[in-house]
Amino acid sequence: MKVTHYTDIPGTEMNNDMVEGVTGRVLIGKNDGAKNFCMRRFDVDPGGHAPRHTHDWEHEIYVVEGNGEVLIGEQWHAISSGTVIYVPPNVDHQIKNSSDGHLAFLCLVPSVAPEM
Amino acid sequence: MKVTHYTDIPGTEMNNDMVEGVTGRVLIGKNDGAKNFCMRRFDVDPGGHAPRHTHDWEHEIYVVEGNGEVLIGEQWHAISSGTVIYVPPNVDHQIKNSSDGHLAFLCLVPSVAPEM
Repeated sequence: MKVTHYTDIPGTEMNNDMVEGVTGRVLIGKNDGAKNFCMRRFDVDPGGHAPRHTHDWEHEIYVVEGNGEVLIGEQWHAISSGTVIYVPPNVDHQIKNSSDGHLAFLCLVPSVAPEM
Repeated sequence: MKVTHYTDIPGTEMNNDMVEGVTGRVLIGKNDGAKNFCMRRFDVDPGGHAPRHTHDWEHEIYVVEGNGEVLIGEQWHAISSGTVIYVPPNVDHQIKNSSDGHLAFLCLVPSVAPEM
């Protein structure tokens, strides 16, 4: 079992040609005994973005803080704290922080996906 | 695909001998095409509580608002916004709102579990 605050889990800073200004954390994963799906949290600086990509597993996303935009397929949608997003397998997607504040979201993936 | 605010999803009020002052919502589930796991949100009134129970699937929980307590096995732990909880299969557990404010958490289950 596990009871911890997300800030007590070390974050991985991500800055490369695909990702900018993102810190990622595996909150619950295989190391905790979770065999079916993995909970991650991503914090995005103002102007930052997650990768635009596609893969053959789904995302279940919940926005916990801030404002931004999500691309699904060819359409961008505004997102804010409390927005729920389901990205089916094999659909192009991206999340960006187009605001001047902090953006944070949970993104869960099934066990076939890389955890980070 | 799905992009919506959780408040646009109808809630189910729960009050019985097991649950008190809880509103539950299936945020992402089989009706959305999600085959592997299900995202639910539960809002708990002050003094309210989810059921104390055990079952053979796991919970992945993230506290989004407020303060309360979680029982895992025989021990209670304080929880607050940002707390991450993994409850393994077949471990007794319960969440209660012992504060005078609102408590809300996400609780995800694998597809073998009932969605609500």
